[in-house]
Amino acid sequence: VSAHYHRVSVRGVGELAAIDALERVLRRGAPPRGVLLGIGDDAAVISLGKERLVFTIDASFEHVHFERGLLSLADVAFRSFAAAVSDLAAMGAEPVAALSALGLSAGTPKSTVVALGRGQAQASRAFGCPLVGGNISRAAELSLTTAVLGRAKRPLRRAGARAGDELWLVGELGLARAGLLLSKRRMRGAPAAALRAFRRPAPRLAEGRALAGRARACIDVSDGLSGDAHHVARASGVRLVIEEVALRSALPAALGRAARLLGSDALQLALVGGEDYALLAAGPRRLRPRFARRIGRVERGSGAVLELASGRLRRLGRGYEH
Amino acid sequence: VSAHYHRVSVRGVGELAAIDALERVLRRGAPPRGVLLGIGDDAAVISLGKERLVFTIDASFEHVHFERGLLSLADVAFRSFAAAVSDLAAMGAEPVAALSALGLSAGTPKSTVVALGRGQAQASRAFGCPLVGGNISRAAELSLTTAVLGRAKRPLRRAGARAGDELWLVGELGLARAGLLLSKRRMRGAPAAALRAFRRPAPRLAEGRALAGRARACIDVSDGLSGDAHHVARASGVRLVIEEVALRSALPAALGRAARLLGSDALQLALVGGEDYALLAAGPRRLRPRFARRIGRVERGSGAVLELASGRLRRLGRGYEH
Repeated sequence: VSAHYHRVSVRGVGELAAIDALERVLRRGAPPRGVLLGIGDDAAVISLGKERLVFTIDASFEHVHFERGLLSLADVAFRSFAAAVSDLAAMGAEPVAALSALGLSAGTPKSTVVALGRGQAQASRAFGCPLVGGNISRAAELSLTTAVLGRAKRPLRRAGARAGDELWLVGELGLARAGLLLSKRRMRGAPAAALRAFRRPAPRLAEGRALAGRARACIDVSDGLSGDAHHVARASGVRLVIEEVALRSALPAALGRAARLLGSDALQLALVGGEDYALLAAGPRRLRPRFARRIGRVERGSGAVLELASGRLRRLGRGYEH
Repeated sequence: VSAHYHRVSVRGVGELAAIDALERVLRRGAPPRGVLLGIGDDAAVISLGKERLVFTIDASFEHVHFERGLLSLADVAFRSFAAAVSDLAAMGAEPVAALSALGLSAGTPKSTVVALGRGQAQASRAFGCPLVGGNISRAAELSLTTAVLGRAKRPLRRAGARAGDELWLVGELGLARAGLLLSKRRMRGAPAAALRAFRRPAPRLAEGRALAGRARACIDVSDGLSGDAHHVARASGVRLVIEEVALRSALPAALGRAARLLGSDALQLALVGGEDYALLAAGPRRLRPRFARRIGRVERGSGAVLELASGRLRRLGRGYEH
């Protein structure tokens, strides 16, 4: 229900079929002098003097991206900040500064605004990204929009993966989705790691920077591994093969426990669950860093497939399947 | 009904009384290394290498900031882009790039998205500010949030006006508000200049850059001359005296015609009408540029007053009075 129009494809929401048309009309704007990478990646890259600036924006609306019943207001603000900062991680960039625009419904009490600010300040500190200003507006519903500026010597892109590369996973998959489902169903015994991943996701900033110069392509897993693998495949003009055995062995133990509680499968949670803000990268075997786990390979072709333990291939969905 | 919390004061909306508390809690975020100017001005200023970056965000929500009945969708998008870019003009900055976040209600047709994009592209071209990406989300109502990045050698601030300075006006006042009122009342014979100022406001980018090195303080008039004069007075620790005779002679002829149609007073429209995105600056007489008109003076003290033709002083309101 949300799409970056600097992204190649879009979660399956009917009204967003307009996205290609929007991109076309936006190309009639000011000539992008100094813009190294515009619409079509995790963030825009701008050349300014000797700097490479990375620039991205993300919005969270109540009832679309979050429900207050499942999260504290500080959690809501923290997650929304994390979603924007994660685009910097995916580009191998370090944060410079963030701005926030809050939409508040009439009669929003002071305590709500302060709780949101507290979550933003916690995220700002956790990610080393100063919040330098913002805007408050009255609106029909609560919303938080965060614009983030970063810098990177050699920004990572979605394009660049080559046949023969390994697929690397950095961080954890599926836990945030498990945490959401466990919270919704108010289940006891929910693994703390799942609740933490849902409430306080951690963008992989340090790992993203370390991947620059090693990985050939990178994306942050926000729409789910399945959909985001398609983004890299399309941008790079290759086929991504996720290997079931390798992926299963890269999944956290807590995900198995959470899946059992939910009567679900850990692999399925990992494939469709986004918002853990893990990184999916592609690079040559000899350059794989220690913190990255191999979960598949890059081949010639297009699209993204799952190679089952049996050796059979299953096409992966492009977006939300649940 | 909207407030920058990097601004000193706030339009008179009850629920925004939380703004000071929000600023306090946000100061617990990441230390603002390299941040030359944070919460409290038209835009943040960040030092990065040899560059001074100027960074700002602005949001427009339907039914709060605009009504579709009075503006085309392209106008809505153009104005919303202009509001963000005008903060750069006020700082004497040139645009580098913009990002946009669109909130769209369910079932928004493709034609709506394309019309908004067309307005954004027109603004982007008019202001020389490439739109390098963005985000689309489903939301309860239509909204546009624009984050803009600029650069400035010597950013202008609200603080810096000194007793003895002249007050300068760059651009036109009151016409956008007259255009809004004339559109609401569907009045015939509305001056084209008023409708244009309402629908397609022009941030004073070139003049803002030319003011850098001449003016000691500057602000863009978005909340109305009266309220924005208070912002400069407070940030600079001085009193601003707007002179009725000087201000009247600086008002455009079209404003007089519009005021007569509306049964209103041109001076009143000029004092409370924002969103023309004129600039209000303070500087020494010998440095006043040709394009700036003197409308008053800076004195020791605090607050903002109108010196009537009779010589009597009238306190000016801090925000929206209508």
